[in-house]
Amino acid sequence: MDRFEPNLRIPGPTGLPPSVREAGARQMINHRGPEFAAMLGRVLAGMQPFFGTTGDIAIVTTAGTGGLEAAVVNTLSPRDRVLGVSIGAFGDRFAKIARAYGADVTKLDVEWGQAADPAVLRAELERDNGYRAVLLTHNETSTGVMNPIPELAAVIREVAPDALILVDSVSGLGAVPFEMDAWGVDVVVTGSQKAWMSAPGLAMIAASPRAWTAMETATMPRVYLDLRAHRESHAAGQTPWTPALAVLYQVDEGIRLMQADGAAAVFARHAACAAAARAGLTALDFRLFADQRFASKTVTAAYVPDDLDWKAFNGEVKRRGLVLAGGQGKLTGKIFRLGHLGSVTVEEILGAMSVLEFVSIEAGRPVTPGAAVAAAQVAALESFGVVTPATAGAGAS
Amino acid sequence: MDRFEPNLRIPGPTGLPPSVREAGARQMINHRGPEFAAMLGRVLAGMQPFFGTTGDIAIVTTAGTGGLEAAVVNTLSPRDRVLGVSIGAFGDRFAKIARAYGADVTKLDVEWGQAADPAVLRAELERDNGYRAVLLTHNETSTGVMNPIPELAAVIREVAPDALILVDSVSGLGAVPFEMDAWGVDVVVTGSQKAWMSAPGLAMIAASPRAWTAMETATMPRVYLDLRAHRESHAAGQTPWTPALAVLYQVDEGIRLMQADGAAAVFARHAACAAAARAGLTALDFRLFADQRFASKTVTAAYVPDDLDWKAFNGEVKRRGLVLAGGQGKLTGKIFRLGHLGSVTVEEILGAMSVLEFVSIEAGRPVTPGAAVAAAQVAALESFGVVTPATAGAGAS
Repeated sequence: MDRFEPNLRIPGPTGLPPSVREAGARQMINHRGPEFAAMLGRVLAGMQPFFGTTGDIAIVTTAGTGGLEAAVVNTLSPRDRVLGVSIGAFGDRFAKIARAYGADVTKLDVEWGQAADPAVLRAELERDNGYRAVLLTHNETSTGVMNPIPELAAVIREVAPDALILVDSVSGLGAVPFEMDAWGVDVVVTGSQKAWMSAPGLAMIAASPRAWTAMETATMPRVYLDLRAHRESHAAGQTPWTPALAVLYQVDEGIRLMQADGAAAVFARHAACAAAARAGLTALDFRLFADQRFASKTVTAAYVPDDLDWKAFNGEVKRRGLVLAGGQGKLTGKIFRLGHLGSVTVEEILGAMSVLEFVSIEAGRPVTPGAAVAAAQVAALESFGVVTPATAGAGAS
Repeated sequence: MDRFEPNLRIPGPTGLPPSVREAGARQMINHRGPEFAAMLGRVLAGMQPFFGTTGDIAIVTTAGTGGLEAAVVNTLSPRDRVLGVSIGAFGDRFAKIARAYGADVTKLDVEWGQAADPAVLRAELERDNGYRAVLLTHNETSTGVMNPIPELAAVIREVAPDALILVDSVSGLGAVPFEMDAWGVDVVVTGSQKAWMSAPGLAMIAASPRAWTAMETATMPRVYLDLRAHRESHAAGQTPWTPALAVLYQVDEGIRLMQADGAAAVFARHAACAAAARAGLTALDFRLFADQRFASKTVTAAYVPDDLDWKAFNGEVKRRGLVLAGGQGKLTGKIFRLGHLGSVTVEEILGAMSVLEFVSIEAGRPVTPGAAVAAAQVAALESFGVVTPATAGAGAS
């Protein structure tokens, strides 16, 4: 493993591009000085288009889970009624956080592998529209499902217009279009180690004017995660507490790379990698876990076949430099996950497929040499709008 | 400023040694894999001697302030009576956190620049020994004062044996001896960007068996900062949430450097740098802020002379590559601070003195060329036990 760089295909932390790695090695600077202020301003401005907001974003030194906690504790009060829409482990975690701080949480549990259904959400809100907030997961990293946030938010805005919409987009934002302001989302959270191509350590949290107002009266306790303290400090070019400076160097560079490509190209690359991953894994005779109508653009989950010794198989995969993620929570041992977010390239997905093919054939699985790579390649090309022999043939038949 | 590396003399983040910088540029790995587990185990074991504990330490992705919040919310319940001993801005912050979570906080305010007096603490605890916890600051970064923790802890253990002793040693631990177990301290917090020679982003929090027990019944809400979740996850070679991985790479390397030097040499180097800073600033006709009996080994604060245009002076100092910190809270504009912790060398302090000398002379301050560097040099040598001409002369007179 030391002789080559592994193909890190977990859904975060993601592999870092060379220039982002180099940024992580920069010397420290005064975090109360003008150089820092310039960088912070650049990062905040660079993020706004990806959030789809013209409003304020807070950068907090914390993992994504701390970002979710910040969304809850800044906007809510104990005994507030909260609807926690959960489609997996991270939806459960979001609800658990609200409960830990005394919110009166009703869970709307969706079968894992499915997305939340706007009609079901509508029915729940028509039954009871007294919720102070609705918790939504944009991209559920544990199942590889992406919720239809615009549709879900539209239902909430219509039926329960006073409810705050708090969205976990830790592993979504930056990789797919997000229009916070247009969709009427109140708080959205993302993390440096996902689409932003950086090391973990920073959560970025945007809030709507309504959410900033809610913070004035919300009484859940917070000091470290106080978003208003962050907003006030950011306005002065600082952070209220010493920030994860080296990670901010990396995010600054990651955004520069994303801007150089352009958002449309970043989103297209993620879509192509996702299509390639799904087609390749299917050709490898792995059954995909998620309802494919809601397949995530950033992580794909597949069942571990009943007759496969996963530990041995994955050991061999890892020995060949491909690092996959296992299942979380109740899916531990039942699925595996392949991440395709951040700096991911189609070539890395094809490389992953070639390793999985090689090890599958070695293990006697029913796999045709080259088939998975070919399927992934065609899917990626088609995702990019290239007419392939396969498409042309299909068109002629 | 771009043509040379500044002499970053703020009390954290501190300048990083080359090998620590390089560690920050490492590629990401699976934070649920064996390579991570080995690193985490190495870091935890390497830290224990500096904490003076054989007990469990939690590594949390947060700034030091989040570490203080973790100390409070994990061990206390709303309405618990807490004595907040404050000798500066960070003592005030510690108390503020406890109050924000509903503790009934009594402040024992000490004049800034002074240390807490064990006799005064004893009197307070004899008046009222019903406190559930006492909050202490080890090294008060805002004033450059180091509290006598062993003496203060001994008083608490004697007069209020049931009180938990929670210590902010964010900017102390690792730079000076600390004997958590022997002193009877219950929770102590430090941060990666201080003595540990790393970028900010990680707080390291050790708890005594009594503190771990207290966590079982403490009811202040916490999820992200839950130390028991960290302890449980650390035992499995992981962290409960995605950690600031690149910072952990750096801390791993920082500890390796500290171990290579040996703790005694690390402490001696900090003592010598502190002595040099104090002697040099005094020779520069700056009046030191702290009562020198309690002068900090990691940061020195001095008054801005009334007749000095600090903005112009500091601008020139900065232009020559020396970065100082200003005052905090009510000391803003009244003092400046010079940090000497982490990878600091005596040579860096001498360099700082030469810049301050140069700019002082330029500014017409009453400074003899070479005097501050000489004073700092002699103080450092004497701190290392070297007999200097000055000492020899003093001995002969």
